[in-house]
Amino acid sequence: RLFDLLPDDIEWVVVADPRHVHYLANFLVHPLSFSGGERGLLILEREGSATLVADNFARRSAAGEPFVDDEVIHDWYDHRHSVINRDHALLAALKRVADRLYGRPGTLEAEWLPVGAWEVLGLDRETHSVRREPGEVAPGQSPADPGSLLRQLRRRKEPDEIELLRVCMRAGEAGHARAREIVRPGVGELEIYCEVQSAAITAAGRPVLVYGDFRATSAGRPKAGGLPTGCMLQDGDLFLLDYSVVIDGYRSDFTNTIAAGTPSDAQRRLLETCRAAIDAGEQHLRTGVAARAVYSAVSGALEQAGYGPLGHHAGHGIGLAHPEPPILVPDSDDVLQSGDVVTLEPGLYVEGVGGLRIERNYLITDAGCERLSHHELTLD
Amino acid sequence: RLFDLLPDDIEWVVVADPRHVHYLANFLVHPLSFSGGERGLLILEREGSATLVADNFARRSAAGEPFVDDEVIHDWYDHRHSVINRDHALLAALKRVADRLYGRPGTLEAEWLPVGAWEVLGLDRETHSVRREPGEVAPGQSPADPGSLLRQLRRRKEPDEIELLRVCMRAGEAGHARAREIVRPGVGELEIYCEVQSAAITAAGRPVLVYGDFRATSAGRPKAGGLPTGCMLQDGDLFLLDYSVVIDGYRSDFTNTIAAGTPSDAQRRLLETCRAAIDAGEQHLRTGVAARAVYSAVSGALEQAGYGPLGHHAGHGIGLAHPEPPILVPDSDDVLQSGDVVTLEPGLYVEGVGGLRIERNYLITDAGCERLSHHELTLD
Repeated sequence: RLFDLLPDDIEWVVVADPRHVHYLANFLVHPLSFSGGERGLLILEREGSATLVADNFARRSAAGEPFVDDEVIHDWYDHRHSVINRDHALLAALKRVADRLYGRPGTLEAEWLPVGAWEVLGLDRETHSVRREPGEVAPGQSPADPGSLLRQLRRRKEPDEIELLRVCMRAGEAGHARAREIVRPGVGELEIYCEVQSAAITAAGRPVLVYGDFRATSAGRPKAGGLPTGCMLQDGDLFLLDYSVVIDGYRSDFTNTIAAGTPSDAQRRLLETCRAAIDAGEQHLRTGVAARAVYSAVSGALEQAGYGPLGHHAGHGIGLAHPEPPILVPDSDDVLQSGDVVTLEPGLYVEGVGGLRIERNYLITDAGCERLSHHELTLD
Repeated sequence: RLFDLLPDDIEWVVVADPRHVHYLANFLVHPLSFSGGERGLLILEREGSATLVADNFARRSAAGEPFVDDEVIHDWYDHRHSVINRDHALLAALKRVADRLYGRPGTLEAEWLPVGAWEVLGLDRETHSVRREPGEVAPGQSPADPGSLLRQLRRRKEPDEIELLRVCMRAGEAGHARAREIVRPGVGELEIYCEVQSAAITAAGRPVLVYGDFRATSAGRPKAGGLPTGCMLQDGDLFLLDYSVVIDGYRSDFTNTIAAGTPSDAQRRLLETCRAAIDAGEQHLRTGVAARAVYSAVSGALEQAGYGPLGHHAGHGIGLAHPEPPILVPDSDDVLQSGDVVTLEPGLYVEGVGGLRIERNYLITDAGCERLSHHELTLD
């Protein structure tokens, strides 16, 4: 699909964004490994071959089995000798394939490929090996801009991606269910984080990354976000639980808000209003709908209940990044596509009452949408 | 210190390895944030100024407050409009400082700076703005190779780095203590992982990353490593707990092995032998000692007890990466330096008995070493 979008004379592409190496070749350096933060590079050739380039320890730290035809691995560390700069091991591996590319027209992911790799490949503008003219490439427009093309391709989730997202969803639901059991006055934000994370790991059957908002809001401080702090929940607080479970780079992202103690009528009204807003948004989730129309529906439901317009996005795409297109905001130019996975997330943050947000995840289809997340939206 | 190591005419450096941006300017995109995997760039000028370049959402996801003189932030996402390729927002920010650098001699971290940044900065060999000749730079040798220089500088841990490492150590100790309470036949590897992680988070007072070996070894399978699986511990197994707690990029890395059930005499002998080996290694931890001498001491103690030589490293440096120099292996050229933080980790993996490894962390000083990790080395 990538080569279909590139000019016919482009014979090779060097992919360098770790997300894209993962997307195309299932090579991801596990973030929970000693190689976290290291990289591999991927060389695709039009005739169909894929070559992975990495150091031996990054290769060993792969989260899954790479789908490639060839692997060029440089031994960085052998448990016998001192090590060189680890980055130079990656470049040494790349050097071994340079001759195969030199002089043939190709392109590269300039946003991630390091200058050192360009040097090793012996590429420059004089050789015209690479279809790029510095400064002349309009971001996102050039037919030889593989990074932007890959971002477009990534929007349409494939069946295996959706399966993995479902695993993230089940893990996210387990964490939300656990939170409902333990949120009460006197419990700490950090304790809830630990319990949610353990529930998600148990449900996923493997270690996962958990990030998001694990914060108490209150009548006096209705807005709060970010990772948990040392704060203890107090009676009357609303605990805002908006978090992602990341497995092999893919993530869920859905939200519930739980009352510490018995919720007040005003707090219940926030939930009812946000539920109406999410219902209104769901009616518009369908291939071809303008993202801004979804925002309008969600925000309009809040306004109809007497609140101001929604102060943040009504939702966004998720997948290997967060957020990613389509972005459901008032001035969005995006249009929903089949295969998009998006969130809807109305929120209200009211002085004297507290902050409340709910959020679900959906797969966009031609007929409408499939809800992927199935947690309870409830204050208690 | 970096400019002292660079040629006098170098007026600026563009730092691009996320670890080095963090090391020099305390800007780290939090791995537990929606911006995990994004980057900032750092421009250092000899007269003393530091400029951080990032998109607004990466900036917002900083793990701490950056120490820089100036920040050039491009608004990638504003909750109102669609978004461009996020990488192009970073390049757009960089473009705003290009004029300040162009035509003045400088250097850049070629192992990480993307080709697109090089294009935006308008740098090329013709202008001689950058002191690099492609292909002529011997890895790790060039005076204008800031990445390798920074890796050298990173070995000597500063007091604030050691303080953070101590927080990692306390969290690691809490996890080991928790494991000793719960390891028994019938417990799952994944359950132990969850409990260890929660104990580490509670001790650290914030979310952390936990990775390493959480695996049961047995008489029939004495070697096992990696993240926990769905396996349940069986009577007679040795649970190998070799893990790191990562906080703001820095990490501990120490090990204990716990018996599921009552350890056998042969298993106890593995522990005694590894304890003798770690004691032997500790005698050599001192500035100026050859890394291979430390390996010999550790491995020699195993051999003296009738086992073969140590089949893996006797230890290695830790800090922002894992492993990093000095590497304690038989053919190492490294020499211990004051400020190194290293591990010692003898292990024995014996058919019919099981696998056992223990590991501690140390700060190298002129007088000897300070032990940083204080967990119990015990089978029960």
